[in-house]
Amino acid sequence: MKHPNHPELRSFIPVSSDSDFPVQNLPWGLFRRHEASESSPEVGVAIGDQVLSLTRLEQKGLLKVASEPLFQSATLNPLMEQESETWKYVRECASHLLREDNPQLRDDSQLRQAVLLPQDQLTMLLPAVIGDYTDFYSSREHATNVGTMFRDKDHPLLANWLHLPVGYHGRASSVVISGTPVRRPKGQLMPPGEELPVFAPSKRLDFELEMAFFVGGKTNRLGVPIPLAEAEKNIFGLVLMNDWSARDIQKWEYQPLGPFVSKSFATSISPWVVSMEALMPFASEGPVQEPLPLPYLRHSDGGKHHFNIELAVDIRTRESSQYQTICRSNSRGLYWSMAQQLTHHTVTGCNVRPGDLMASGTISGQTPESRGSLLELTWGGQQPLALKDHQSRSFIEDGDEIRMRAWAEGPGFRIGFGCCTGQVLPALDAPASHG
Amino acid sequence: MKHPNHPELRSFIPVSSDSDFPVQNLPWGLFRRHEASESSPEVGVAIGDQVLSLTRLEQKGLLKVASEPLFQSATLNPLMEQESETWKYVRECASHLLREDNPQLRDDSQLRQAVLLPQDQLTMLLPAVIGDYTDFYSSREHATNVGTMFRDKDHPLLANWLHLPVGYHGRASSVVISGTPVRRPKGQLMPPGEELPVFAPSKRLDFELEMAFFVGGKTNRLGVPIPLAEAEKNIFGLVLMNDWSARDIQKWEYQPLGPFVSKSFATSISPWVVSMEALMPFASEGPVQEPLPLPYLRHSDGGKHHFNIELAVDIRTRESSQYQTICRSNSRGLYWSMAQQLTHHTVTGCNVRPGDLMASGTISGQTPESRGSLLELTWGGQQPLALKDHQSRSFIEDGDEIRMRAWAEGPGFRIGFGCCTGQVLPALDAPASHG
Repeated sequence: MKHPNHPELRSFIPVSSDSDFPVQNLPWGLFRRHEASESSPEVGVAIGDQVLSLTRLEQKGLLKVASEPLFQSATLNPLMEQESETWKYVRECASHLLREDNPQLRDDSQLRQAVLLPQDQLTMLLPAVIGDYTDFYSSREHATNVGTMFRDKDHPLLANWLHLPVGYHGRASSVVISGTPVRRPKGQLMPPGEELPVFAPSKRLDFELEMAFFVGGKTNRLGVPIPLAEAEKNIFGLVLMNDWSARDIQKWEYQPLGPFVSKSFATSISPWVVSMEALMPFASEGPVQEPLPLPYLRHSDGGKHHFNIELAVDIRTRESSQYQTICRSNSRGLYWSMAQQLTHHTVTGCNVRPGDLMASGTISGQTPESRGSLLELTWGGQQPLALKDHQSRSFIEDGDEIRMRAWAEGPGFRIGFGCCTGQVLPALDAPASHG
Repeated sequence: MKHPNHPELRSFIPVSSDSDFPVQNLPWGLFRRHEASESSPEVGVAIGDQVLSLTRLEQKGLLKVASEPLFQSATLNPLMEQESETWKYVRECASHLLREDNPQLRDDSQLRQAVLLPQDQLTMLLPAVIGDYTDFYSSREHATNVGTMFRDKDHPLLANWLHLPVGYHGRASSVVISGTPVRRPKGQLMPPGEELPVFAPSKRLDFELEMAFFVGGKTNRLGVPIPLAEAEKNIFGLVLMNDWSARDIQKWEYQPLGPFVSKSFATSISPWVVSMEALMPFASEGPVQEPLPLPYLRHSDGGKHHFNIELAVDIRTRESSQYQTICRSNSRGLYWSMAQQLTHHTVTGCNVRPGDLMASGTISGQTPESRGSLLELTWGGQQPLALKDHQSRSFIEDGDEIRMRAWAEGPGFRIGFGCCTGQVLPALDAPASHG
């Protein structure tokens, strides 16, 4: 039987050649049917423009994985809590059911009616209860750009950067699903040339192009680090992330303890969690690490711990009905691997839990068009981006929508992530009651 | 009927005059009975050296609060999700049942047997599922001490400090209950005079004396800040906190995004959550805020938004069987109020949730003995603390136990917090599998 990644595998469900979701992908997601707003959320995998409901398959006894049900609790967490063998097994089951040469689902119209659903008839939900969210800072080009602009252009990287994956704890409560509108934040900022801060809507609202992984598997107990060689067992899958940032609020608040309310007003993720199994054919080597990291962070197996994933950011301005691409990047260039991030996160003994979310930091590349934020693309707003119809942007304006895309190109198919979108709403006028 | 805070109120349960838990306190906690390790956790309030089980009272139909049970789900979160009127009502019910002039529980030995339990026959548990944990930096004296040591003794406070409550996102997964041993962390640090970092056990392991509040009530939606005048409705209660810190790891990692693995290996909290209602008699004015904060952070009601709570830190070294007090402080001196912290946290639109935990930052005062960390008490290790039996400490050594205490002195009684303790274990020898 063909492996679920086999390039020649086909599904009886028609999948166009430019679809993000061929049968080789089968990303996990949580959704609710439009037809029944009171119904429980369901877990499914995407296939073409359809979704296969694992929740319904399990209810019908057609998917028996563990002693307890895995898909009846309105989150992906029970699946994430399993070990990677179980994730692979479920993916194989779904792949098997969807193959063009398997009549079980293909020829049973009643079953198809029950377990398959067009994606335009459902709403995607945040896939997991996120215990903790961590944001790394793992693109050397991004850290260099930011350091050049704000600190010292001759020494843009701080002394620690090449020795450890710098990261910080983010805010889990404000991680939202793609499509959620983002309210322009108001807050404290220090206008240039002023001596006292003011309270105002952010004038330098930005996106950050990132990817993020969900933690899964049997995780570590408090006090016991995860060795590098075992870290990849604890990576469940990947999503796209827009780490919305208010640059003016950030600049005023971030010293000495790091970004706080300038980034905690919203963080958007794409709804489909692409499995590490589906991404395996796209594993690649990362940049040479020089100086060599300390042994606990040293990949010494000669393996491929990065992933060749194409990235793009599009903007649809409030004046336009069309998206324009303003950034093209690739996750392969990240300096620190996800395994290194996770191992470093736990090196002092911090415990991680299935459902934790860990992001890459802005993924900038070496070319100007690969810079993953407006801050970098417009070089601090000094070089506004020229757009169609005589428009330009230094930072995001009200009504603008940001769309991120990611995909890995396989032979004859693509392993895509779908989109991560968000439209910016004007700041609230007056202080309002929150009740 | 006397208010639960009335100084003359007495319980039929004997309470010694130096007890932290007179009938005027009744702090909330989650516990498991020793007698039945398989039994479900229960919610209770402390009274003297006993606990009154709200879980059992509710099961017996003697405590009916909402349409759904509040005390049957092994956390305080369902109670925290109620509004403050409900917290007050439950406290009144418990107070009423415990009064010396109420025979209902006093004279019913079978009921007493069921719902009262000595504290030495139970294990306290982490009271809530903590969605997000935030740590502020609200003691001016602490920020000044740290700034003097590490940055610029002539300008120890950064420009933003007097304008906003500086804070950062912490790690929720590693918040542990008092009594949990703390493993000395290993990590990256840069030894003085070296040019390359090393991997080693922290040599500068420290405590930080803090208090923390749990968020409760009807909280804000994403995008809608909590106005200052409404913030106190969202404070459920207070605990003591030890924000364990590895100073050498922190120093190497913290720029530019703040502390990360140097503080995420363990954060201990005391098990009893003291209600804001019980602390109301100890509300006090805070320090004068000059410059005046921006209007969204300005307390303009002339009210008292700080609390006069005495604090102490004791050490029991590995060589000793006795505790020695090494710090005495008071939470009244914190520059920023909890309401200001919460309002600032949400100003850009960040949503908070019942069960979120927000800590004060190290609570140092103006005198040398009120410095709330060894970093400050020993001035960066330069002035080791002289202890009994010819011992001394610059930082915490293996086997040492740190105990924190907090209490507010009332007329004839004290509203105490119990203790927050933790003993430091030696670092793990070798990298181990986490399985």
